[in-house]
Amino acid sequence: MPGARRAAGMHRPRPPPPEEPPALEDQDLLLAAAYVSDAQYNRNVPFETSPQAIRLYYFYNHWAMQVATYFFICVDLSLALFEEPALFPLPFLVTSIAEVLCLTAFFGRLVHFAKVTPQMVFWKDTKNICIMVTIVLTLVDLIVYGILEALNVYGIRWSRALRPVFLINFPESRQIRRAFRSIRNTLPDVLYVFLLFIFSVGTFSLMALKLFGDRSLKTVEGSPYFTNILDIAFELYVLVTTANSPDVMMPAYEFNWWYSLYFITYIIINTYIFMSVFLAVVYNNYRKHLKNEIRTLAYLKRRKMIEAFNILKVKVGTESVVKEAQWRRLVKVVAPDISSSHLELLLRILDEGQKGHVDKVNFLRLPDLLNIQVITINVKRHPLEAWMPRVYQSSASLLVQKVVRHRVFVWAYDVIILINAIFIALDEKNPFISYAEWLFLSLYIIEILLKLYTYEPRAYFGRKQFWNWFDTLIIIAALVATVANTTIQSARKYNSQQILDIVLILRILRLLRVIVSIQRFRVIVTTLINIGPTMLTFGGLVLVVYYVFAIIGMEAFHGRVHFFGPNSTSPDALACGNSALRDSAFARGKYCRNNFNDLGSLLILLVELTVVNQWHILADGFALVTHQVAKLYFIGFHIVVVILIVNIFIAFILEAFFVAYSLEKSEVETAIEKKIQELGVGVQEEKVQDGSLVENMDAKDSGFSEDNKKKDLKGLYFRIASKKYRTVDALLQQMFESETAPEEEGPSLEEILNFSPADIYPKNPNFENSA
Amino acid sequence: MPGARRAAGMHRPRPPPPEEPPALEDQDLLLAAAYVSDAQYNRNVPFETSPQAIRLYYFYNHWAMQVATYFFICVDLSLALFEEPALFPLPFLVTSIAEVLCLTAFFGRLVHFAKVTPQMVFWKDTKNICIMVTIVLTLVDLIVYGILEALNVYGIRWSRALRPVFLINFPESRQIRRAFRSIRNTLPDVLYVFLLFIFSVGTFSLMALKLFGDRSLKTVEGSPYFTNILDIAFELYVLVTTANSPDVMMPAYEFNWWYSLYFITYIIINTYIFMSVFLAVVYNNYRKHLKNEIRTLAYLKRRKMIEAFNILKVKVGTESVVKEAQWRRLVKVVAPDISSSHLELLLRILDEGQKGHVDKVNFLRLPDLLNIQVITINVKRHPLEAWMPRVYQSSASLLVQKVVRHRVFVWAYDVIILINAIFIALDEKNPFISYAEWLFLSLYIIEILLKLYTYEPRAYFGRKQFWNWFDTLIIIAALVATVANTTIQSARKYNSQQILDIVLILRILRLLRVIVSIQRFRVIVTTLINIGPTMLTFGGLVLVVYYVFAIIGMEAFHGRVHFFGPNSTSPDALACGNSALRDSAFARGKYCRNNFNDLGSLLILLVELTVVNQWHILADGFALVTHQVAKLYFIGFHIVVVILIVNIFIAFILEAFFVAYSLEKSEVETAIEKKIQELGVGVQEEKVQDGSLVENMDAKDSGFSEDNKKKDLKGLYFRIASKKYRTVDALLQQMFESETAPEEEGPSLEEILNFSPADIYPKNPNFENSA
Repeated sequence: MPGARRAAGMHRPRPPPPEEPPALEDQDLLLAAAYVSDAQYNRNVPFETSPQAIRLYYFYNHWAMQVATYFFICVDLSLALFEEPALFPLPFLVTSIAEVLCLTAFFGRLVHFAKVTPQMVFWKDTKNICIMVTIVLTLVDLIVYGILEALNVYGIRWSRALRPVFLINFPESRQIRRAFRSIRNTLPDVLYVFLLFIFSVGTFSLMALKLFGDRSLKTVEGSPYFTNILDIAFELYVLVTTANSPDVMMPAYEFNWWYSLYFITYIIINTYIFMSVFLAVVYNNYRKHLKNEIRTLAYLKRRKMIEAFNILKVKVGTESVVKEAQWRRLVKVVAPDISSSHLELLLRILDEGQKGHVDKVNFLRLPDLLNIQVITINVKRHPLEAWMPRVYQSSASLLVQKVVRHRVFVWAYDVIILINAIFIALDEKNPFISYAEWLFLSLYIIEILLKLYTYEPRAYFGRKQFWNWFDTLIIIAALVATVANTTIQSARKYNSQQILDIVLILRILRLLRVIVSIQRFRVIVTTLINIGPTMLTFGGLVLVVYYVFAIIGMEAFHGRVHFFGPNSTSPDALACGNSALRDSAFARGKYCRNNFNDLGSLLILLVELTVVNQWHILADGFALVTHQVAKLYFIGFHIVVVILIVNIFIAFILEAFFVAYSLEKSEVETAIEKKIQELGVGVQEEKVQDGSLVENMDAKDSGFSEDNKKKDLKGLYFRIASKKYRTVDALLQQMFESETAPEEEGPSLEEILNFSPADIYPKNPNFENSA
Repeated sequence: MPGARRAAGMHRPRPPPPEEPPALEDQDLLLAAAYVSDAQYNRNVPFETSPQAIRLYYFYNHWAMQVATYFFICVDLSLALFEEPALFPLPFLVTSIAEVLCLTAFFGRLVHFAKVTPQMVFWKDTKNICIMVTIVLTLVDLIVYGILEALNVYGIRWSRALRPVFLINFPESRQIRRAFRSIRNTLPDVLYVFLLFIFSVGTFSLMALKLFGDRSLKTVEGSPYFTNILDIAFELYVLVTTANSPDVMMPAYEFNWWYSLYFITYIIINTYIFMSVFLAVVYNNYRKHLKNEIRTLAYLKRRKMIEAFNILKVKVGTESVVKEAQWRRLVKVVAPDISSSHLELLLRILDEGQKGHVDKVNFLRLPDLLNIQVITINVKRHPLEAWMPRVYQSSASLLVQKVVRHRVFVWAYDVIILINAIFIALDEKNPFISYAEWLFLSLYIIEILLKLYTYEPRAYFGRKQFWNWFDTLIIIAALVATVANTTIQSARKYNSQQILDIVLILRILRLLRVIVSIQRFRVIVTTLINIGPTMLTFGGLVLVVYYVFAIIGMEAFHGRVHFFGPNSTSPDALACGNSALRDSAFARGKYCRNNFNDLGSLLILLVELTVVNQWHILADGFALVTHQVAKLYFIGFHIVVVILIVNIFIAFILEAFFVAYSLEKSEVETAIEKKIQELGVGVQEEKVQDGSLVENMDAKDSGFSEDNKKKDLKGLYFRIASKKYRTVDALLQQMFESETAPEEEGPSLEEILNFSPADIYPKNPNFENSA
């Protein structure tokens, strides 16, 4: 009778099952565990199943090895800071030894990987070939450059532009690779639109030459207007980026009103329509390939779990199942740190009938369950209550707690923050105002202390209590910095500028708290925080592209333009140290600081080019000092970064918002979440976030004593990651899985790895359309 | 026996049906026809069913009445050209009489509409209230202004800004209204994001004030840098539009490299993330409301067809049907110009079994069938063949035809066009080159003549043969203009500049033909042409917003800035005639032509502001002459046009591309198209487009003689509008209808009119997700 068994709880001494299977080989268990943990972390690497290979595979996936890899990648990339032209110069010998060390590490990692995966798979994977070729090329370049250096001949370290290959091609940076794959897949479609666009610009250039070329008009700067077809094409290309609007139009417009219609037509066709078409094409491809990738990952996960199941399964009646004992051993290997109560909880969810074994459908759920965060929420009392119950429960203390929990308390502090903002805006040299700052600081400290008094401290500083941590850290840092500054000031009669700046920024960041206390805003902020991690992927992508362009730019344009400091009186300062720039728009705009002389300046310069405005002045400036060659560099950068990467970024943000929106509407919930809700052991993240956690727990506590079944699990809850806090990937995968029948095995491994976006297998209408 | 009947064709004398229903009242027929034509043109106006009202309703929908309405709207809007400050000044009396006339026309139209629709519906519709209020306000303003004018007191014609209300609110401009509704519905969501964005800008401004305010830095122009919080907020707002990047950053960056990180953070958060979020929010709402509207239209159409059916139906057995005779009378009323063979064809499709009546499901298809274009494609011979068959069929003539039809012929002309482009780019003062132009012109004329010789002329100049028309018109126009120019030149030794410009543009437009002969490009161009009509809607939307801003701007800033002509030597020319502008960036950039003095200049100015670049210089310029008030105008324009309207435009283009894409994938085909294909009387538009129409017809012709059934319809084909040439609306409606069961009646009229985007009735998974 299942009811009776359940009532007995999970702590009853379990009778040995009638037919215990022969103990599995450790080898098989390790293999199954490797499959499960692959599924859990969504790795899509096939590995060999020999005992030695599995042990190597575990070692390969060890966190220390991954950290070491990233460390070497960072070292390799940051070498550019120390090589000529350097921010911090180091001799060539030092940097080259460091680089060889990195290359050795990469090679070692690759060899390790080769030992783990089947030969066929290893050699078919372009990633591995790429890394090997890059290592060889880098070594060749190092040797050639070293010899040239020894002979005092000028050489170019061209292989430095290849360094991002290591960042892209290691299996761990899947997100960056996916973005690159998106770009690569988009290229053919974008190319056709681009050719059409170039044709359009060319046609308009020809028209402009004929319409304006013979009018002997002058630009604002007095040079001839639209007389050379190449110059016109460049000007019109710049107009697409809007950077020279309306200056490029003014001479023609002043000459005759009707000529402005030419420019308006041009802008509508090329700036608005073509640029939107680029976005549409990029977005469409991004969408298509994202879905394909998610599908591949989902099927791969299922396939690996089936492999693991097949290793562990035994027959019970007509059904293949995994025995409880085997299952426990497996989970212990996959997640060595799991607590025994957590393990019991998992088992209880997967083996609901407490039949002593886990069937296939439930077994497949294991990786999702392992990915769900578990927290022990103590229905424990506040430490002060335990320590001095009389005082903590006194009516005064209860009143304080009630006040702190009241909404008015939050509002009062919002008002205080706004008043603080006004004080910050006022002049702080007034001593009264600087005293006020102390007052505000102490008010904030009192707030935190009061909250700690009211709420259970461990709940208040829970793992995902982002805003509580934010508050406390900012206040403590502000306190430390203010005290440090006062000490220095009274000791040396001198304000440390750095510390003041930090105090100031901390003080202003506190204003963010007002936003968080307004519900409507919190939703938007949460979505933005949610897509934050994936935006870092784009950081990686941009870093790669910037790095390549930076290295090329440094080699090509280094030292052509000099910056003499804002207070320089040198006559060369006005021409950025290059007579070709005298009286150019570049020098007049005081853009000398935007140069290619070191990585720091380059980073800023490339950001400016990404923002687009005035890029034609920068391009013209460098074109003047390099006989027009530089224009190709700037146009190339614009095409790659602005037309491709920025559009992919926009596509990503649009997609993230749409997925969040369609999920909100369709309320997709996985079977696992339902099960957890049924058992009554789930806590919605929102409640934890709200800071109302403790009350919520108190309420549940009283309910518990009436319900034996729930009481068993007292003190242990599954926290279901809030929908808002999930990544787009996780959401999409969830949508896909919720539409696939749990029994379905999906296509074979071979098929999965060769998925193309055109194969729709099986057709998931919602997933296909909304993703 | 249906087979025997079908073999007999449709020209057999039809025996009178056994039980002819009593002839319908003409009244009922007219009512039913009104319903059908409403469904056909997707009008969603309920009307009264009294005989008089129906007659009025027919009159209301008459094309002449609609043209008259649009004429008066145009006159009303264009009055701004003739009123002070005017391009073409007219006395106040003339313009006010014209305006009163327009208002009378609008009022008459409204009264007409009120007579047609039920009272309840009329007064519940905000459109009608809007028009009435606007008429009253305009009259009041006219009278007040007239009195002030008579007393020589300065008055403001503020009601002019209300004129676009007439354009928006007449029932015929549904598309513009929809765009406005999209904007209105988006406002709450956009507002929250906007507040957050303003908060972010505010926080950064405060930070900037504290970080840079005390450093005594100078801008490029030598003014103090970041010392006033309002100026900082404005500069940072401008930075979001990227218009002052990187200038705004340079002083801080030159002072210390680290400060540039402040600006990069700002740009990432506010320019990239917030602007993308705006796009996401606008797009999401656009999508949601578009779907809702399509659904409403589709249900309304069905509902009206059911009403019409219920009027005409008679019982045959257990089934309600419409008798053939009634059906014929109905179609004759709905489409008076229909040819009898076309009518027979429709009947044959709807009454496939030739049972002498049309059942309900088929009856509902009538509006779609009426909307399908029908052409008579003559399997007729080339006129020359009929005229002199021996010559036309001679081997030389056949060879010519074969050559012209060959792909190499197209390629040869592509090469000629490219060579022509090179000649155009070269200097045309060289007499050799101007002779070459005659050569090219004659080559093109020969091409057209050859094509007319080879293809049937009526097919070559078919209704949708866009590119053939394009070619011919351009060549003829170029011929006429060149001849005219040569005549003038030889007569007066003088080149007419206007004619030369036109010749030139025509000559360059010919280059477009190269694009069209490349298949990959043609697809993109077709999609763009396809969305062209709806882009005109956006033209209307932009016109409305521009008009309102233009009137406000003219009243507020008229005459503050003057332009002295490009060659003026007046000392005021350098300061645009306003001493406040001396040495400002506005005057230095020679922006004096960008002023508010007449509608022409304003149009260009507003386009420049829409393009965004340098808008802060324009804003600063007008702020100088109006004590900073103008900044509000410019910021308002930026928020409305760039943040809302441009984003809706981008959303529209994205949606158009995605719908085209998902349709291509899912191959939605309506039952009607299938039926037409089954009968073998459809011609795909693509074939017509390809110019291979004639061969295609020839091939079909030979097939016909073998097939009696098809021969009946010889000379008459349904042209199924190519998928590529349909509008987004039509595509979406088709997707929606293909997912609704043909029997389903849908919700009631009441429900339909109160649809909100949240009601999903019934749930159409594909439509909901992909639209």
